[in-house]
Amino acid sequence: MTRKPMSGVLSPVLTPFNADLSVDAPRFLAQCRWLLSQDVQLAIFGTNSEATSLTVAEKTELLDSVIAGGIPPETLMPGTGSCTLADTVALSRAVVGHGCGGALMLPPFYYKGVSDDGLFAYFSEVIERVGDGDLRVYLYHIPPVSQVPLSHDLIERLIRAYPGVIAGIKDSSGDWANTQGMLDRQWEDFAVFAGSETFLLQNMRAGGAGCISATANVNPAAISRLYAGWQAPDAEAQQAQLDRVRAVFQKHAMIPAMKAAVAAGSGHADWRVLRPPLMALEDAQSAALLADLETVGFDVTRLAPQG
Amino acid sequence: MTRKPMSGVLSPVLTPFNADLSVDAPRFLAQCRWLLSQDVQLAIFGTNSEATSLTVAEKTELLDSVIAGGIPPETLMPGTGSCTLADTVALSRAVVGHGCGGALMLPPFYYKGVSDDGLFAYFSEVIERVGDGDLRVYLYHIPPVSQVPLSHDLIERLIRAYPGVIAGIKDSSGDWANTQGMLDRQWEDFAVFAGSETFLLQNMRAGGAGCISATANVNPAAISRLYAGWQAPDAEAQQAQLDRVRAVFQKHAMIPAMKAAVAAGSGHADWRVLRPPLMALEDAQSAALLADLETVGFDVTRLAPQG
Repeated sequence: MTRKPMSGVLSPVLTPFNADLSVDAPRFLAQCRWLLSQDVQLAIFGTNSEATSLTVAEKTELLDSVIAGGIPPETLMPGTGSCTLADTVALSRAVVGHGCGGALMLPPFYYKGVSDDGLFAYFSEVIERVGDGDLRVYLYHIPPVSQVPLSHDLIERLIRAYPGVIAGIKDSSGDWANTQGMLDRQWEDFAVFAGSETFLLQNMRAGGAGCISATANVNPAAISRLYAGWQAPDAEAQQAQLDRVRAVFQKHAMIPAMKAAVAAGSGHADWRVLRPPLMALEDAQSAALLADLETVGFDVTRLAPQG
Repeated sequence: MTRKPMSGVLSPVLTPFNADLSVDAPRFLAQCRWLLSQDVQLAIFGTNSEATSLTVAEKTELLDSVIAGGIPPETLMPGTGSCTLADTVALSRAVVGHGCGGALMLPPFYYKGVSDDGLFAYFSEVIERVGDGDLRVYLYHIPPVSQVPLSHDLIERLIRAYPGVIAGIKDSSGDWANTQGMLDRQWEDFAVFAGSETFLLQNMRAGGAGCISATANVNPAAISRLYAGWQAPDAEAQQAQLDRVRAVFQKHAMIPAMKAAVAAGSGHADWRVLRPPLMALEDAQSAALLADLETVGFDVTRLAPQG
């Protein structure tokens, strides 16, 4: 129970689909290997992985396949949250069974305006039903998408009830005051990850654990360099350059834009495929994205996985 | 392809759980039979059924069990929508395979701000993959919960692409102007259900098909009576009484309150159990609910299923 929480930079790994929308597991493994080579760890099955568009069976098989492919389990923080207790338990059990570093857990997100008591009951049931002291839960606070926020009081209640198991949080509120508020509480052995590298320097200075960020799919080495060197003299300049790159992806719609960039860099056109309701960029949009990326000095050819 | 759309009053059937949160299939069957005896049809797996808290396997087995129990398939409009295309397809196939009246389909509801093109692609993929001309899709517009609205232009585009298959909509926007706007478009063989009996009389007068309403779980006969007799001289008075009853359930939190009332009426305490993040009413809250129901002349002993 005294294992230290994870820290560093994690990428919510993009999930590669074939043209028929099926998952391309070998391409996923190659992408995971490439990301590790760029010094980021792997928050597979995140929002940017289109995790809620994958079935539980698909996620379980993909997890099995990356483990079988030699990805070190301690670098993995798979997303396991869903609307359905039993699904979350099943996937979290698989994650613990493989010895993964942790599980990133969305709250159930269909019903809105649910009580802290209800959310506490949900996370408690998950933890009790997984029933394994090796489980490490990283809560996933992303109210702009989930529309179900996690209050600081709820988090503290969970930490007290399950010390060591509740290991951290990804804060994707986009609201620095929320992140700062959690750091101010000084919860012991609790890792606070910024949900975007926009707040990476600020988070490191305030005692945070790093970031779990969409753009770590496309700009991993640079983000990781700032994480490692946040006390370096050029840290502010590094942060500014990260922000410029991120702004381009954000402008063109984050997930489709990242997939378009990886497609362009790798020459593998199927990287552009998303599962509906998300849609691939059209050709003209991709061209505009690539032009904007060139403007900020971003070289997409760096994105080709090293296989 | 010329089968008429469903019409009337449908109940999003409450799902009975045991104390350990498992589904009580025999109790569910008894409830379905009782609701049919009260002249309402069965929108099992709706929002009020806690459908997103059930796994696909649980829903498939429950559907099999009510069919095996003799519930006429044409009275069933199971909810099949989810965030995951493959899950929606699997459940929709089961629904068509059993010859159900229709499938009530939420849009994928994790990603917010998705485009009409993306939603069109999603519903198209579902229909193409189910690949059965007997599929009847009733779209489920419930922006207060799903946070993913269905625009009239999207609906019209779907009707044109899949005439006969896109058979209707449940409008749970709570906004009569939205319902009226759809009726104004006069889509052929397209059933517009109000998402609450609050709008039942208004909807019938404007050419709608009826309602699919939470409260049809607890007040089915009275709602059905207004549906059948909406041109009766006392229709306004009937509507007013329906509204009074509904307001009490709404005041005490709809789903837990309905379950508490059914528990009180049937004497089966496990009816109070909800899956987290939803929570059962506490004893004092249940008592207050029952007192309020008495005030509006609502007799909970009517709720006991006839077994």
